[in-house]
Parts: sequence; structure tokens; C-alpha cells
Amino acid sequence: MTHPTQKLDEVVHQKTRLGMLAILSDVQKADFNFLKETLTLSDGNLSRHLQVLEEAGLVKLDKVFEGKRPRTWVSLTKAGRSAFQAELISLQALMGGLEGSR
Amino acid sequence: MTHPTQKLDEVVHQKTRLGMLAILSDVQKADFNFLKETLTLSDGNLSRHLQVLEEAGLVKLDKVFEGKRPRTWVSLTKAGRSAFQAELISLQALMGGLEGSR
Repeated sequence: MTHPTQKLDEVVHQKTRLGMLAILSDVQKADFNFLKETLTLSDGNLSRHLQVLEEAGLVKLDKVFEGKRPRTWVSLTKAGRSAFQAELISLQALMGGLEGSR
Repeated sequence: MTHPTQKLDEVVHQKTRLGMLAILSDVQKADFNFLKETLTLSDGNLSRHLQVLEEAGLVKLDKVFEGKRPRTWVSLTKAGRSAFQAELISLQALMGGLEGSR
């Protein structure tokens, strides 16, 4: 038997990355500054977590220029969407298990 | 405005410790071996996470001898129970927010 928490993937479960995936699951794309402000992160902190998610193939970065301003758009890949859904299913299993045993 | 994931406490949210707290929330106490087997951990890994939880005041360890065998009982403190409840509330807020926006 596997405890529901064993199925959690640290790449997805870590709280900042979980927040990023939750935000991205609701939109087609979000820009760097939106993620940064919504989650109150520093540039460095957000960059680091974006890199982890990008290396795991869960997000795609799109660096564009709008006029002279660089802008980084972030979106979930298909794998990212699946990984986030899997996390929600594991969390629901955890909470369902707790309710069932009370 | 605070995103629900920002309220998550890494001491509680980390997946192994979340599993430990979930198990302990359902029983008065659990012994070291039970936690180790239920979560498929090594002795060292479980000890390390127990130490983090103990230092944060979330669990209490009770080392006893049963005959000649040492046994370590682990139980949630009142603060541990509250911290675990707070985690569940944040996770529910995260999932509720997602459902609401679909």
C-alpha cells in the first residue's frame, strides 16, 4: 500500500512551484512580472523555480520584445498540466483518506 | 491579496513530513517503525524529518524500553495538530480557488 503523500512529486509539490502551476493552470500564459507579483517573489527566486519547472518539461518560456521591452511569457506544457492534475488527485486522496478515517 | 500557496509552511508542506503529520493526526501515537514502513523511509530519512518536526515543536518523541527493546513513540503536539489543520485549510483554498475559476 502506498501512502498518498508518497505519490507527490517534489518538483510540483514545493509551495512556490505549486503556486506557479496553479496560476498557469487557469490561464493560457502569464508573464514573469505577473507571477512575481502574485506570489510575492524576488526576480532571482522566480527565475530559479522557473528553471526547475522548465528543466522538468513542465513549463515553456517565451521571451519576446514588446517594443523595446523584453517580456517573458510562461505557459504550462501538456506534461505540466498532467503533473499538476496528478498533484491535485494525490492531495484529494490525502484529504479524502483523512475524512474517511474520522 | 495572498495566493493560497503562500500560506503553506515548508516544515509542514514537505511531502514526507506531510505524510507523517497526516498519519499522526489520526492516531494518539505511532511508533518509529510504523511511520517508517507506512511511508517507505530509511531510518536516517525518518530521523531527519522527525528532528525537523520536533525542533519546530510539532511532534513529541517518547523513547521507552519495552522489555529490552527500545521503542520510539511519536505523537502530534497541540501546535502540530494546528499546523496540520492550517495546511489542509490552505490546500482546500487552493483547490477551491481552482474549481471556482473553471
